[in-house]
Amino acid sequence: MANQQLTNLPEWNSLCEHAETMKSEDMHLKHLIVEKERLQNFSLKGGGIFFDFSRQRVNEKTMALLFQLAETLGVTSRFRDMTLGAEVNVTEKRAALHTAARRFSNSPLLLDGKDIMNDINSVRDQIRIFSRKIHHGEIKGSTGKPFKHVVVIGIGGSYLGTEFVANALAPMADKGITLHFLSNVDIDNFGSIISSIDPETTLWIVISKSYTTPETCANENQAVEYMKANGLDPSHHLVTVTSKGSPGDDPTKPVLATFHMFDYIGGRYSVTSAVGGVPLSIFLGYDRFERFLKGAYEMDQHAVEAPLRENLPLTATLISIWNNNFLGYSNQAIIPYASALSKLAPHIQQLSMESNGKSVTKDGEFLEITTGVIVFGEPGTNAQHSFFQLAHQGRPFPIDFIGVLRPTYGEYRAKTKGVTNHQELWANLISQPMALAMGKEDEDAARFFPGNRPSSTILLEDLSPENIGRLLAFYEAKTVFEAFIWDINPFDQFGVEPGSEKRWPQKMRMRNTNSTV
Amino acid sequence: MANQQLTNLPEWNSLCEHAETMKSEDMHLKHLIVEKERLQNFSLKGGGIFFDFSRQRVNEKTMALLFQLAETLGVTSRFRDMTLGAEVNVTEKRAALHTAARRFSNSPLLLDGKDIMNDINSVRDQIRIFSRKIHHGEIKGSTGKPFKHVVVIGIGGSYLGTEFVANALAPMADKGITLHFLSNVDIDNFGSIISSIDPETTLWIVISKSYTTPETCANENQAVEYMKANGLDPSHHLVTVTSKGSPGDDPTKPVLATFHMFDYIGGRYSVTSAVGGVPLSIFLGYDRFERFLKGAYEMDQHAVEAPLRENLPLTATLISIWNNNFLGYSNQAIIPYASALSKLAPHIQQLSMESNGKSVTKDGEFLEITTGVIVFGEPGTNAQHSFFQLAHQGRPFPIDFIGVLRPTYGEYRAKTKGVTNHQELWANLISQPMALAMGKEDEDAARFFPGNRPSSTILLEDLSPENIGRLLAFYEAKTVFEAFIWDINPFDQFGVEPGSEKRWPQKMRMRNTNSTV
Repeated sequence: MANQQLTNLPEWNSLCEHAETMKSEDMHLKHLIVEKERLQNFSLKGGGIFFDFSRQRVNEKTMALLFQLAETLGVTSRFRDMTLGAEVNVTEKRAALHTAARRFSNSPLLLDGKDIMNDINSVRDQIRIFSRKIHHGEIKGSTGKPFKHVVVIGIGGSYLGTEFVANALAPMADKGITLHFLSNVDIDNFGSIISSIDPETTLWIVISKSYTTPETCANENQAVEYMKANGLDPSHHLVTVTSKGSPGDDPTKPVLATFHMFDYIGGRYSVTSAVGGVPLSIFLGYDRFERFLKGAYEMDQHAVEAPLRENLPLTATLISIWNNNFLGYSNQAIIPYASALSKLAPHIQQLSMESNGKSVTKDGEFLEITTGVIVFGEPGTNAQHSFFQLAHQGRPFPIDFIGVLRPTYGEYRAKTKGVTNHQELWANLISQPMALAMGKEDEDAARFFPGNRPSSTILLEDLSPENIGRLLAFYEAKTVFEAFIWDINPFDQFGVEPGSEKRWPQKMRMRNTNSTV
Repeated sequence: MANQQLTNLPEWNSLCEHAETMKSEDMHLKHLIVEKERLQNFSLKGGGIFFDFSRQRVNEKTMALLFQLAETLGVTSRFRDMTLGAEVNVTEKRAALHTAARRFSNSPLLLDGKDIMNDINSVRDQIRIFSRKIHHGEIKGSTGKPFKHVVVIGIGGSYLGTEFVANALAPMADKGITLHFLSNVDIDNFGSIISSIDPETTLWIVISKSYTTPETCANENQAVEYMKANGLDPSHHLVTVTSKGSPGDDPTKPVLATFHMFDYIGGRYSVTSAVGGVPLSIFLGYDRFERFLKGAYEMDQHAVEAPLRENLPLTATLISIWNNNFLGYSNQAIIPYASALSKLAPHIQQLSMESNGKSVTKDGEFLEITTGVIVFGEPGTNAQHSFFQLAHQGRPFPIDFIGVLRPTYGEYRAKTKGVTNHQELWANLISQPMALAMGKEDEDAARFFPGNRPSSTILLEDLSPENIGRLLAFYEAKTVFEAFIWDINPFDQFGVEPGSEKRWPQKMRMRNTNSTV
């Protein structure tokens, strides 16, 4: 299904026509959201989370047209095919089986006639055993001391997802391990980390599928030199997570352990594989990592099995397409009212913008429509005191609000003006989407709020590993569903090549060495 | 000068016409940037930094028209008037004298007939003396132990600027003090901080101009209860930064010290006042804070005194207006190739989006044109492995690249493929703007790069306090210049009121208390 076919579809044209009516003053959100049973009709529960889209600029007809579009395009069956090993990454001739990394099923999952669950389960076992040995001091550094610091060397997809999950679950980190991320090739990233660790008790986890990522190789080199300068044997302080047979999986260069990544799991979708599994299991314990996987698995099953109109990530996708292609919004903010989710937006920024920031279909035809939006965000209420001035009175952008019913530190209940911090947080989480939608009349133009600013609200029961897994898998499924609607390939990233290929850098490096740099 | 007058100006109309010619294929950046002396003609040095705008979609005519617009609007004289105390914050009937906070001049600065430099110098002296006493252990906690942890309680403008500067200068923090930010009313922000401090050696700095900010009051209450629960006397662990006579400046509620904020310095412009001064002087030492102020002062003087065509922040502003109002870009990324500047984008996001995310002129007329853009960013090279796929092949957005010539940890020089980390970083910093501008032909549509994506590059010598001050003042001046061109008031923030006023929250709080929250 190429783009010209997409925009020529009767469903697409009906949506274009319908969008004009939804832009009228009659369809301002202040009218829509007061409709009878608005919340009941425009919210869903599934996969363990609650999704309220009653403050999106949609009505029954909008949703009917959007679901019709999804049905015509067969996106849920393509999603199912993806989870069963179809070669959905057509440009790189690969399957995209990140969902297999958190699959808990006794049935085999065949790829090229081979049950890949054997490999996946074997890596999970290896992580479980290795992390337990680290915690029990059975694996030690080269001077015989147990490990207390872990530095993850990896960038992009080998870093952001793990950082998000580690931050979200940090209150559970009871293994006596501090976790650091050495991602940037900037030597100051390295310098600031080594100023806060002790080399004898530090384990370095080097994560790179190809083991040729320039930043990661450069940082591994710095780490090795640093260990040697401190009289340590790097082979007793290094772990690698990489593809079988890569330069990081070389028996002539011994390390404590090597965990395999598989070519059917792309970097930005890899946090449920060994990429997240090794550091998160050492930081939090393997059991918690497995609980996180099980949450993601639950959402995957929901995305595959739920009927169209009950499918949370699909519904979120259709609203995203509606906001982008029909209402013309070019951004998407993610505002979790939870400090622990402070790294969600940077992770989804990568997941979404790298997957869907493209202009060609999977079959290489240029698109006439826009695809991925610019994703950004900070936690609320902080965001209210930062960029919500613009959100209310400047150029509008859709927002995903995220709420957590039970905080982790709920035992601190000192009241201010009669309410606890958590109640104050929730008062804001409830009032902001309403105020953005409703607007406010005022004779003073400076105090006039146009309203009609759309948002969704996603609710989690608490910050359990399961819920973090569900939230991750929700956004992963949404990213893939979007791509399937646009008919683009969300699994390649040729646009990153100008930074990786050496044509530019080598020429520039010549110039560079003649300067003061 | 109201909006209709702005868009009716001959200069504005000439720019509209000119923009059409600049959108033609002939004016693709791949043609512009190879012009003779492009870099010489489209770069500036001043205020201690270097600004290269040769990869913006401008030619000589563009700049001539833009400078003519600035001249007609008299923006530099309005800026000078601001620094001299003019009532530029017309809606709140106040001056905007953040520049006075870093003024080092023997001449008086009169406001309502009074030399405000007396107040400013007196607060600076108070900070210098207080922070020295903390470092020397002359001021101790209620159990007689010197302070080792500082928690800043503040949100928005009482937080983001200090976080940016503290991160940028963290390698200089040699006073044995750890610094934490308690901004969010989310109780998990409080819970995670107290899990990493020792109450006996913790100093809490509460920052709020009005001392009525709900988040800040709630967090102060939690902190006080926590101190009491630990048998401490809160009056020996608290410092306030607030307006004279506010509830935080109440002699009946004793604290270790109170530092005054003045109503002529707005929150998001306040990092050079006591808001940044108290925590930064304790974290880094007062001398370094003063060096930071002196850098900001140098840039302020440049912004006031430099001729139009040599004025860095004004030139950056005109390019921003050009990109936004004439070329139609709705976002601005800030990508520092320096890990230490990781909190620059969140700070500028607030500074810019809260100042200029508005739809009315300072005189209350609705604007027909768009104002503030959506600002976002992450450090490079990280950003390359996150959202640069979209930057190269998806919807385009202008970028401010920032480079630092000498890293802080330059002593780590292990080489990988013949280059140090710092050289690899710079190879990327040089190649990315070029690749974005030039694009790349390819028969395979998936590997085709359209190019013509504009960017500027800002260079700093190093991460000294002076350079951080210069960079801060550059963005502050740019924000104000933008507002002066649009004729909006960048110093008020009525759009934040829906979150502060109690109409929504109170109604919702009722609902809230009946739920499981």
